[in-house]
Amino acid sequence: MSLQSSLDPDLAARLKRDPNGLFPAIAQQHDTGEVLMLGWMDDEALARTLASGRATYWSRSRGEYWRKGDTSGHVQWVKSVALDCDADTVLVKVDQVGPACHTGTRTCFDGDPLPLGG
Amino acid sequence: MSLQSSLDPDLAARLKRDPNGLFPAIAQQHDTGEVLMLGWMDDEALARTLASGRATYWSRSRGEYWRKGDTSGHVQWVKSVALDCDADTVLVKVDQVGPACHTGTRTCFDGDPLPLGG
Repeated sequence: MSLQSSLDPDLAARLKRDPNGLFPAIAQQHDTGEVLMLGWMDDEALARTLASGRATYWSRSRGEYWRKGDTSGHVQWVKSVALDCDADTVLVKVDQVGPACHTGTRTCFDGDPLPLGG
Repeated sequence: MSLQSSLDPDLAARLKRDPNGLFPAIAQQHDTGEVLMLGWMDDEALARTLASGRATYWSRSRGEYWRKGDTSGHVQWVKSVALDCDADTVLVKVDQVGPACHTGTRTCFDGDPLPLGG
């Protein structure tokens, strides 16, 4: 990628990361409230997300940055990003173009619900 | 806790966990769509959540199960639980009693949004 970013030092100082330098990022459709997917970010992915307005994740399986929609066209336009109280998770409100899930469903949570009850 | 549960073997076979046996659980208010918090579960926490209808997490900081609301009264009554497409994250739709966040805010993401733009 040509975009080079670095995270604001104050923000970087607040963030808590797992041993791989990653933290979970929840993507939510900004108007309907649908939870679309959970991805992983490191500092650079968050910096790129904030600077570009395009949700950008770290792919744990491929070991590379992944700007959502570059391959599929299913872009996530960022509306807002918020840290949680422990500064170890981000909530990214987006406008999702097309399906969020690589399986073609709107969200990654569209499978059968798990059975409740003892 | 007196409740003893074990996860359905088919579900346990599908789940993907991190090296500590944990996976992220997103709690969402079932009717408003608010993303309330992100917690962590292991198989037992998920089994207890499904069996009891009370969202139950694994506290990484305290190293113990944590049934939301037992101390604070801020119970999460479970409406539905869904796995994501990769079976490594769960979305728990709940009816949240009172604030979800230990800081007293409705959600754990109620802090100032991060600045967007390059």
